[in-house]
Amino acid sequence: MAGKRGAGRYCALWMSGGGPESDIVVSSRVRLARNLRGVPFPHRAGEEQLQAVLGGVRQAVEATPSIGPTEVLGLTGVSILDRQLAVEEHLTSPQHIQEPSGKALVVNRDRSVCIMVNEEDHIRIQAILPGFQVDEALRLASATDDALEETVDYAFDENLGYLSACPTNVGTGLRSSVMLHLPALAAVNMLGQVLASVSKVGLAVRGIYGEGTEAVGNVFQVSNQVTMGRSESEIVAHLKAVARQIVDSERNARSAIMSDARSQLEDRVYRSYGILTNARMISSEEALKLTSDVKLGVDLGLIPDLPPALLTALSVDIMPAHVQRFVGRELNAWERDVFRATLIRQRLGAADPESAGPATGACKEE
Amino acid sequence: MAGKRGAGRYCALWMSGGGPESDIVVSSRVRLARNLRGVPFPHRAGEEQLQAVLGGVRQAVEATPSIGPTEVLGLTGVSILDRQLAVEEHLTSPQHIQEPSGKALVVNRDRSVCIMVNEEDHIRIQAILPGFQVDEALRLASATDDALEETVDYAFDENLGYLSACPTNVGTGLRSSVMLHLPALAAVNMLGQVLASVSKVGLAVRGIYGEGTEAVGNVFQVSNQVTMGRSESEIVAHLKAVARQIVDSERNARSAIMSDARSQLEDRVYRSYGILTNARMISSEEALKLTSDVKLGVDLGLIPDLPPALLTALSVDIMPAHVQRFVGRELNAWERDVFRATLIRQRLGAADPESAGPATGACKEE
Repeated sequence: MAGKRGAGRYCALWMSGGGPESDIVVSSRVRLARNLRGVPFPHRAGEEQLQAVLGGVRQAVEATPSIGPTEVLGLTGVSILDRQLAVEEHLTSPQHIQEPSGKALVVNRDRSVCIMVNEEDHIRIQAILPGFQVDEALRLASATDDALEETVDYAFDENLGYLSACPTNVGTGLRSSVMLHLPALAAVNMLGQVLASVSKVGLAVRGIYGEGTEAVGNVFQVSNQVTMGRSESEIVAHLKAVARQIVDSERNARSAIMSDARSQLEDRVYRSYGILTNARMISSEEALKLTSDVKLGVDLGLIPDLPPALLTALSVDIMPAHVQRFVGRELNAWERDVFRATLIRQRLGAADPESAGPATGACKEE
Repeated sequence: MAGKRGAGRYCALWMSGGGPESDIVVSSRVRLARNLRGVPFPHRAGEEQLQAVLGGVRQAVEATPSIGPTEVLGLTGVSILDRQLAVEEHLTSPQHIQEPSGKALVVNRDRSVCIMVNEEDHIRIQAILPGFQVDEALRLASATDDALEETVDYAFDENLGYLSACPTNVGTGLRSSVMLHLPALAAVNMLGQVLASVSKVGLAVRGIYGEGTEAVGNVFQVSNQVTMGRSESEIVAHLKAVARQIVDSERNARSAIMSDARSQLEDRVYRSYGILTNARMISSEEALKLTSDVKLGVDLGLIPDLPPALLTALSVDIMPAHVQRFVGRELNAWERDVFRATLIRQRLGAADPESAGPATGACKEE
C-alpha cells in the first residue's frame, strides 16, 4: 500500500467529482455490516481468528470474478501515515486503522467498493459514488454482498436478520449516507434549523469523517441511524427523501443569495480564492472553509475556469496524511501548514511548479 | 482643474515614490505660513479682500519666473469631488476646500510646490518631496517664499517674526513633517511607545490627512508643533533627528521580524496581496491596511516584481474622490467599494483590463 501510493497516484472515484447534483451532494455511500457464522466478533476474537476471517475474505474475493479486480491493502506493517490516507479518502474508518493487527482493506480499481475486514464487524462492504446516487450505491454494495455470500457463510438469524457487533446494525446491517455541501444554508443561518429537523426524523448528522468528527467546510454526512425492523429499500428511500429536502433547501438558499446578495457573495468567494492561492501557511480547517467558499463560487458560476472536481479532490488533498504524501516524508504541524499552502497553490495553478514540493500530478489511473 | 484632471492624468512627484529611505519615509514636507500686510486674516476678511489677496498672489507668481511654470487651480466653481482630489494628493488641507469662495491653489508642474491661497493664512507655501528629504523640501519652500517676497509685502514683525492667523505659527511660520510607514513597529506592538516618546519631545503625530484624521495603513505624519522662538534650521533639524530615530526603530523591528518570524510575515503579506487582488468590494480603510502589508512585503523583498511606487500611488488612488475620477462619475458608498476593488485589481495587474471601469493608466506626465 505504502509503495504504491507513494509512487503513482490514483484517487477514489467519488473524489473525481461529478454525478447527479454534485454541486450539493458530494458523494453517496452504502455500507453493509456482515459477520461470519461461528466466529466471535472482531473485538472479542483472538489473533488467529482474525487471520482466519481475513484469509476467508481473501479467498472469497479471489474466487468471485463478479466483484472485479481487487487489491488487498494490508494494514499491518504499513505506516500510520499510509493507513490515514485511506481514512482521508473515506475508504475506511478511523477506528479500523488504529490497531491494524489482523485487519485489511480490500478495494476495487476505482475504490467505489471497499471491504473493511475486521473493523467493528468481520466484514463491512462499502460502496461510495460521486453525487446523489444512493440507489446505485445500494446496488453496488448488494452485488458485492451477494457475490461474497456465494463463498462466505454469514451469521444470519431468521428473526433478527444479519447479526452485528453493535445492536444498531442488526437487521439489514445497512447504513446509507450522503455527504452534503451546504454553504448557502450556513450563510443564511438556516443550517441549525434544517439539521435539527433531520435529527427529528431519525437520521444522524455528522462531520465528514464520521462519528465523533466535526463538520468543517460546511460538509455534513447525513445517515440513517437504525436498521433493525426496516427493509433495505425503506432505509434508502427514507434517506433519499430527507436528503432531497435538504438539497432543495440548499438550492433555495443559493438562489436567494444570488438574487439578494450576489455582489457580497462574489466578494466573499473571490477573497477566499485570493487567500487560498496566496497563503504561505494554512491549517486544514481554514483550507476546508476557504475551499468550501470557492466550490460554492465555482458551482454558482461566479468563478469560471476552475473545474468543481478539482475542489472536491483538493478537500481530501489538504488533509494531513495527503500533505505528507505530497512532500514524501513525515512533517510536524508547522511544516504541514507550510506545505499544505504550497500544495494548494500548485493544485490551483497559482504556484510556480518548481517552487516547492514534488510535482505530484492530479488524479490519474494506475 | 476638473477638466484637466478628468481627462489626462498626472500625479504629484511624491506619489511617484522613490527618494532616500522611501521604504519607510513616504514623503517629506515643509509648509510656510505667510500673510499680507494690512489685510485681515482670511477668516475675518471679506470676499473683496480675499479676491485681492488671490489677485496679488497670481500676479506675484506670474511676475516671478524663478518659481517655474505654475497652474492656478481655482476652487470656486469646481465640484467638491475635484477639490477633494487635491486633498487626497496632499496638495492642500481638507479645511481649505470646504468653503471655496475666494480660495485657490497654485501648483508647479510636478506638484512639489503648492501655494494655498486664503487657507487659514493668506499664503501657505508647501513643498513636498518623496522619501526623507526635509532639507530639500525646506530649500524648495524657501526659494518659493523668497521669490514671492520680491513682489508681495508680507506681514512681518521684527520681534515676533512672520504673523499668522494661529499663534502656533507665528515666527518662522514653518511646519515641517514626514509621513512614515511603520508597519513593523505596529506588528511588534511598539508603535504606542515610540509615538508617545515623539509627543514628549514636542512633535505631533497625526493621521495621513493631517489634524483630526486617523492613522490608517500604519502611516503617520510626524510634525513640529511650535515655531515661535526657533529658527527654521532648528525646527527642521529637530524633526529630522526624531524622524531618524523612528526610522531606525522601524528598521530594527523589520530586521527582528525577518529573523524571528519571516514565514508568518510572508504568509501575512501574501494573504493581503491575495485579498487585494481578488476582492470585489473593499472599503478605503481595509484597502489601506492591506496595501500597507503588501508595501512592507515589497520593501522587504518578500514580494518581487511589484514596484514599491505602485503601492504609494495606490494608497492615494483608493481614496474616495480618486475612485470616482477613475469611474468618471459620482458614486455612492456601495459603488465606491465595488469600483475601488476594480481599480485595485487593474493597478496590480490582476484584472482583465476590459473587466470594468475606464482603463485609466498609471501616473504620467502631462
